[in-house]
Amino acid sequence: VFALGIDPGLSRCGYGAVRALSSAGGASGAGRQLSAEAYGHLTTPASAPVSDRLGLLWEDLVGLLDDLRPDVVVVERVLFQVNARTAMSVGQASGLALAAASRAGCAVAQYSPNEVKLAVAGYGSASKQQVQRMVQLLLHLDEPPRPPDRADALALAVCHLSGAGLRAAVASGDRT
Amino acid sequence: VFALGIDPGLSRCGYGAVRALSSAGGASGAGRQLSAEAYGHLTTPASAPVSDRLGLLWEDLVGLLDDLRPDVVVVERVLFQVNARTAMSVGQASGLALAAASRAGCAVAQYSPNEVKLAVAGYGSASKQQVQRMVQLLLHLDEPPRPPDRADALALAVCHLSGAGLRAAVASGDRT
Repeated sequence: VFALGIDPGLSRCGYGAVRALSSAGGASGAGRQLSAEAYGHLTTPASAPVSDRLGLLWEDLVGLLDDLRPDVVVVERVLFQVNARTAMSVGQASGLALAAASRAGCAVAQYSPNEVKLAVAGYGSASKQQVQRMVQLLLHLDEPPRPPDRADALALAVCHLSGAGLRAAVASGDRT
Repeated sequence: VFALGIDPGLSRCGYGAVRALSSAGGASGAGRQLSAEAYGHLTTPASAPVSDRLGLLWEDLVGLLDDLRPDVVVVERVLFQVNARTAMSVGQASGLALAAASRAGCAVAQYSPNEVKLAVAGYGSASKQQVQRMVQLLLHLDEPPRPPDRADALALAVCHLSGAGLRAAVASGDRT
């Protein structure tokens, strides 16, 4: 399974592509090898009108999906934040990511930040640095993804793949 | 000038296309004839996943822009509402409308609901019915657009065209 995590945003839209390789031990979540294949950010110029920035982000998302061809796109579920202005542009960017994934024929999953932290770091209130460190360990990276928010998109993909692995294991009766 | 108003939403996305014809009296806002050329709704099935609904809405918006080829797309500025869940899907739909308009090469304008009410009905706290009635009068429709929220998309286009007409009149020194 090849999962593309997307941390939506208009200024910086993080992405992280993770492949799950079936290990010799079978399909259990713990035994799965995860490999980071690509990660980075899409950016749009702050000086451009919002509509043009969204138009550029759409093009970049479509190009990214065409390049990587993931099986599943994992988008952070946007929750309401203190800053209403930021939350709205994040919501708009998430709408583009969800629509582009659907149009590209990908499966789509959404997780809240707390669900991701719980899956990756073991508890829902983990810090950015703890998530960054766990992503490094789980993906066998030589150093932590920097800046920390690059780790968030990878963590989304890891969250989905670990959950998917676990569900598959439960479904097959393989709980080891 | 041919303006397409869009009242974004995932269940019902209203649209209303209005053309401003230069009258014999010149380019002043008051003298401009406005004509409704098309209005209706785009809908997506409530039973489908949100990502697929957004994908379908994207396709419909691209098709609508391709059919109508407006000069300017006027999108309601989404404000935070009581219902966070609705506000987020409205925000996601507005992101698609803004991106699709930019990709289609259209100019884009946004107005808040209060700005639209002020422009169309004369005060920012006008009721749905008052907006509906003013849209009927301004666009010389035989009956009010029904349901009332169909009038909202037309009102967005009227708001922009009246403001644009006024600005053009001020710029040219024609204030009559």
